[in-house]
Amino acid sequence: MKIKQSMINIKRLMGRMMQMAEIGAIEGGGVCRLALTDEDKISRDLFSEWMKEQGLEIKVDAIGNMVGLRTGQKNLPPVAIGSHLDTVATGGKYDGSLGVLAGLEVIEILNEQGIQTKHPIALINFTNEEGARFTPDMMGSLALSGAENIDTLLKARDLANPGVILKDELNRIGYHGEPWSKPFQAKAFIELHIEQGPILENEGLQIGAVERLQGIFWTEYVVTGSASHAGTTPMQLRKDAAYVASMVTRFIRNLTKEIGNGQVGTVGLVELLPNAINVVAEQARFTVDLRNPDKGLLEKAQQKLDDYIHKISVEEGTSFVKKELVRFAPVNFDQGIADLIENTAVELGLGCKKMVSGAGHDAQMMASICPTAMIFIPSKNGISHNVNEFSSEEDIEAGANVLLNVVKQLAG
Amino acid sequence: MKIKQSMINIKRLMGRMMQMAEIGAIEGGGVCRLALTDEDKISRDLFSEWMKEQGLEIKVDAIGNMVGLRTGQKNLPPVAIGSHLDTVATGGKYDGSLGVLAGLEVIEILNEQGIQTKHPIALINFTNEEGARFTPDMMGSLALSGAENIDTLLKARDLANPGVILKDELNRIGYHGEPWSKPFQAKAFIELHIEQGPILENEGLQIGAVERLQGIFWTEYVVTGSASHAGTTPMQLRKDAAYVASMVTRFIRNLTKEIGNGQVGTVGLVELLPNAINVVAEQARFTVDLRNPDKGLLEKAQQKLDDYIHKISVEEGTSFVKKELVRFAPVNFDQGIADLIENTAVELGLGCKKMVSGAGHDAQMMASICPTAMIFIPSKNGISHNVNEFSSEEDIEAGANVLLNVVKQLAG
Repeated sequence: MKIKQSMINIKRLMGRMMQMAEIGAIEGGGVCRLALTDEDKISRDLFSEWMKEQGLEIKVDAIGNMVGLRTGQKNLPPVAIGSHLDTVATGGKYDGSLGVLAGLEVIEILNEQGIQTKHPIALINFTNEEGARFTPDMMGSLALSGAENIDTLLKARDLANPGVILKDELNRIGYHGEPWSKPFQAKAFIELHIEQGPILENEGLQIGAVERLQGIFWTEYVVTGSASHAGTTPMQLRKDAAYVASMVTRFIRNLTKEIGNGQVGTVGLVELLPNAINVVAEQARFTVDLRNPDKGLLEKAQQKLDDYIHKISVEEGTSFVKKELVRFAPVNFDQGIADLIENTAVELGLGCKKMVSGAGHDAQMMASICPTAMIFIPSKNGISHNVNEFSSEEDIEAGANVLLNVVKQLAG
Repeated sequence: MKIKQSMINIKRLMGRMMQMAEIGAIEGGGVCRLALTDEDKISRDLFSEWMKEQGLEIKVDAIGNMVGLRTGQKNLPPVAIGSHLDTVATGGKYDGSLGVLAGLEVIEILNEQGIQTKHPIALINFTNEEGARFTPDMMGSLALSGAENIDTLLKARDLANPGVILKDELNRIGYHGEPWSKPFQAKAFIELHIEQGPILENEGLQIGAVERLQGIFWTEYVVTGSASHAGTTPMQLRKDAAYVASMVTRFIRNLTKEIGNGQVGTVGLVELLPNAINVVAEQARFTVDLRNPDKGLLEKAQQKLDDYIHKISVEEGTSFVKKELVRFAPVNFDQGIADLIENTAVELGLGCKKMVSGAGHDAQMMASICPTAMIFIPSKNGISHNVNEFSSEEDIEAGANVLLNVVKQLAG
């Protein structure tokens, strides 16, 4: 055992997790805490209070990110940790909150043990990671990393109420702070998060050392055929937009096998017009979500998909319009930090594997400004963004302990 | 030429068609005249006035059917003709109105020529054929033929405003009449209607002698899988309801070829839950419309579909619930009347073929109480239930002339 291990106080951490989950609690055990709503304000105020109790110096930036700074022995770039407190509309108790509150627990343990690290530690609650109320998602980390212009982000409109502007909502809840005087810098960024997938659970492991994030391509297609009577239009005369959408959905399943390397593909949204029992669909609007950790393979998958939609559309006599919604290239995290996470987990006696994140996280933005990696713990049945989202106390303890000991080593 | 031909006044008929189309006119040249709305009342009042001008004795029955009786030489069952004046929300000028107003034109010609037929003639405007506001569709003919209980039908609720009851709407617009003292009887029923399909136009014919109506099976399936993250759920662990719906849609296209005999099949309505770009669909609700003029083949198609959904659902790990929405057996019209229509068309020098109706019509209900057949004229591009619905003046004239001469022969 190379490191002197510290252990977090799981009872305290779970207490805070459950207290936080009461803010915006919804039926079935879930949480609805959309960004910059009253519920988000209450959770921020509570988190602010907890940070002050731990003596952190709190900075709120122009996009509403909350950064609690624990001073170090030297004036060095901080080791940054954290995640987000906002949720989707039918969210769970763990997505986001875990990384923020486990970070707070790490700081409280360091305080209790009187450990002053060389590097300061920065605990971050990123604004609007989910993108469920305002787009883009991962907004806080996009701003903090300088990847997006803050003035543009501040003009974002509430998806459900386009008259409501993000900047006004930040002011309304009291979290529109000052811009950074110089670009944010960090020695490293570590985000503890639930996996939101079934891999760790299926393999019986408690820790994932996330070394890479898949590339994500989201594309919308609108196929236009011809509305016609379902009873009177012979099959060979149909231009059926719903049929084309179906053939594409089937094609994607086969495409994922052909591309391989963890390629996934999903048609999750389909809307037909006129969407009537007895009318051949004139229009099908559907989205395709393609992900692969390899940029070249992801682009190849997208190209094959476009070629197929062209082919099937010509066969059916339909036309289509394509709209690129998201093009995130794969992100490689810092191999040294991923190794450190894996080694730390092993030394703590925890089952661990290196893995790829299928979902987007604030860490992917932070990776552009500092060495970054993530710690995953299992999600029961892989379920997330759902009131049934669940991670066990044992796994939460394991993840927070890895975070604590990784931070101790990085902060020196 | 065996019959002394009469010819209708196409200018007068088109004038009435266009005057009627102004009631509920919508952008693009269409008509919105949902059953028992103010627009329906205005069209009924106008039709009533026109029938009175022709000396018809008007009876409004308990479901609001309007029947105008032209007395015959003898107290015999009437030759009944007609169709419906209601439309769907985005309807055209011809569907329904043609059969009603051409019937009126037939009577005016008989009046002008001083012809008194042996049998009376009954001109009918059926209530709520479309079923766009109240279900079931073909309500007036269901009631008149005794196939449905009138008290049950009177309780139907407005699909968009469930607080509104059909009986109250009949009373509101002044068309809740008296029940028939004895079941309605007729020597025959003839309905002139636009084809609502592309067959006559494609074959360059002006008249279809409709000898049969396809059987119609409408079925709703709700497939339930498991909502999961589109980025983090490996393909082999998915239970994707949208994928199952797609495979079924593709299967149906192949099934129609396998079954043959004019088999058609349509998935026109698909609704996913949660219907999000990055969530594997937990639920897919979709409908299947299967039609075939042969009952045995239609049942075979339905059985093969059910077998396939079972098979693909087992493979994907989803479950499904099936709900039978409509089961109309094919209806064979009266061969003698279909022959009479065909012969009359040929004698008038019109291109004609015997055909099968793919759509449902009031005639299918009337066929259960008297010898029945239909006369079709071409629909441009097969389009119907659409503001672009169009039939040419020449074809309308041809259809009305066939109706006139068929009625003359049947009424004697």
